[in-house]
Amino acid sequence: MRVNGKHYRTIWEVEDGVEVIDQRQLPHIFKTAKLRSIDDFCFAIKDMLVRGAPLIGVTAAYAMHIAAIEAKSKSDFNQHLVNCANKLKSTRPTAINLAWAIDYQLSALLGLTSNSEKIEKALEIARKITEEDIDCSKAIGQAGLKIIEEISKKKNGEAVNILTHCNAGWLATVDWGTATAPIYAAHRKGIKVHIWIDETRPRNQGAKLTAFELFHENVPNTLIVDNAGGLLMQKGLVDLVLVGSDRTSANGDVANKIGTYLKALAAFDNLIPFYVCLPSSTIDWELEDGISEIPIEERSADEVKYMDGKTEKNIQNVLITLEETRASNFAFDITPARLVTGLISERGICNANRESILKLFPEKAC
Amino acid sequence: MRVNGKHYRTIWEVEDGVEVIDQRQLPHIFKTAKLRSIDDFCFAIKDMLVRGAPLIGVTAAYAMHIAAIEAKSKSDFNQHLVNCANKLKSTRPTAINLAWAIDYQLSALLGLTSNSEKIEKALEIARKITEEDIDCSKAIGQAGLKIIEEISKKKNGEAVNILTHCNAGWLATVDWGTATAPIYAAHRKGIKVHIWIDETRPRNQGAKLTAFELFHENVPNTLIVDNAGGLLMQKGLVDLVLVGSDRTSANGDVANKIGTYLKALAAFDNLIPFYVCLPSSTIDWELEDGISEIPIEERSADEVKYMDGKTEKNIQNVLITLEETRASNFAFDITPARLVTGLISERGICNANRESILKLFPEKAC
Repeated sequence: MRVNGKHYRTIWEVEDGVEVIDQRQLPHIFKTAKLRSIDDFCFAIKDMLVRGAPLIGVTAAYAMHIAAIEAKSKSDFNQHLVNCANKLKSTRPTAINLAWAIDYQLSALLGLTSNSEKIEKALEIARKITEEDIDCSKAIGQAGLKIIEEISKKKNGEAVNILTHCNAGWLATVDWGTATAPIYAAHRKGIKVHIWIDETRPRNQGAKLTAFELFHENVPNTLIVDNAGGLLMQKGLVDLVLVGSDRTSANGDVANKIGTYLKALAAFDNLIPFYVCLPSSTIDWELEDGISEIPIEERSADEVKYMDGKTEKNIQNVLITLEETRASNFAFDITPARLVTGLISERGICNANRESILKLFPEKAC
Repeated sequence: MRVNGKHYRTIWEVEDGVEVIDQRQLPHIFKTAKLRSIDDFCFAIKDMLVRGAPLIGVTAAYAMHIAAIEAKSKSDFNQHLVNCANKLKSTRPTAINLAWAIDYQLSALLGLTSNSEKIEKALEIARKITEEDIDCSKAIGQAGLKIIEEISKKKNGEAVNILTHCNAGWLATVDWGTATAPIYAAHRKGIKVHIWIDETRPRNQGAKLTAFELFHENVPNTLIVDNAGGLLMQKGLVDLVLVGSDRTSANGDVANKIGTYLKALAAFDNLIPFYVCLPSSTIDWELEDGISEIPIEERSADEVKYMDGKTEKNIQNVLITLEETRASNFAFDITPARLVTGLISERGICNANRESILKLFPEKAC
């Protein structure tokens, strides 16, 4: 997608590694960073230069290619791969795509006999995961586009007002995003849309990232506080809610950024369609009940108590509470399937229940 | 209530006027300000040294006493009172208690013949409104206390977890507050409570004021982002929701700080009692339907885009979005009566419907 008119992906190959968009100081400072060593990759994932489950997975896949190159000069090639894998996995232990991409590489590489073949294979897999991620986003975009088109027709071409929470945008993937993919598809097709962006406290991914993305893609948008969505729905100012998913249970419960559940309740109360956009890789086929089974990550209270922003001179971190204030910071909540109008996956749209999900993914019905 | 162990009201008489807590830089800086002239009072209300409907009313009542003192030296005593009244009313045009207190004074004063009598009467009325406000808060506290006591009994004395939104605390009134009054009553009675404080974006009254209040009263509390309440309810970590009301329709719909509706939905979905604490002065007996009839104030986008907080050196205002980002900032939403378990007023508790409200206020049934 575009930044200052130039096309970018979030990650791309350069001569001796990859280059990524350093997302830490967005939206204020746009810069990129080259990752050339395993330490570079570990730092980029841990310090969140890259974030978003799909992008973390792709970054880790490329990291394993670098690990293989580094392994050439080590006494035990495979041991070095395993060491790097462990080091990478420990950077963000709860990120499912991270472990998935690394294990994918390990299981393909360790069995090969030739070291140069391992290096080639690692690059091949990294590229494959990258392209699959882009294809997945595009397919979600095309499936979701139909929903937006229908609403647009009903409104005689008037702008379709879409509310989104957090950043399930292209910055969280390689390109297009998940919840934003149908939005970009609609906008590029000339369908009028207007996006309400939840700022998404405490880390403000909506204000910082989604607003940045939509601004640079010229998609009309308005930032709101997380408290505002209910009123906007009461006033008839929201036609559709599109969010992403961090983890989806086989019965259709959706673990997503904290606050998603509140928007789902409001959408349900105001008869507004609420769709979850997800690559099927986020579906956890073992889970029967999201609410009781999905563990909720608790993060540092400082994310609630401090906020960073731009002054006239620089970027400052400011304390917005008393120092003594105690804060709690759960990262996700669970939106029960009963509140979800549908799931938009790379294979199309289904209802949020086991039967309907399995119709799209029959190979999982065992 | 206490600040650094010393008892305060939000406003008190001093030799030549009143002194108020300057709430603008709370929680970081606690200071007070003396108001001695009409200009002082206008500035204090407009610039939000004082805020909260009840406190604004009391402040305006004292302002009219100062107006009467100032009028002594003017050619037309009554004309000066009217001029001051208009000037005061224009400071925050939508604040109902402001106009109410000023009109109360005007109608009592303008008919009197002696100027010195007018001055005395103005002070008498200001004191009366002050004491009535405190009595009202105390009565709400005693009524709400019963609900907390019952839950405490059911939990065998384990802490009652109460979620509150915004600041309906003593800083918004003269003392005790509205939604906080039952909390302070319970805490002083030795009933264990723990308060979840919504930070309440965009102005962060929860993080700045409610957290400050509860800290200084030693009431156990935890600050959360506005997104978190739904998850906490899903996890069984909330026993009761207590909020205030800016305006209540005769059928029980509640206009309160933006985001209140989302918490009401979550409470309803999780079978958690949701009570609204209100002085009956916030009931608008003319309104039949809050959702269609209550106009929603829209405030500056800068409240969403900028945030102030403490650095090592001073208090800074930082931009938390792109400069180009457009933001919308509605101040209130409407919680429909069907989601409200009950209204806690100075006359006791009633259901959120016309019939039940009128049982408590039979004089309004005409």
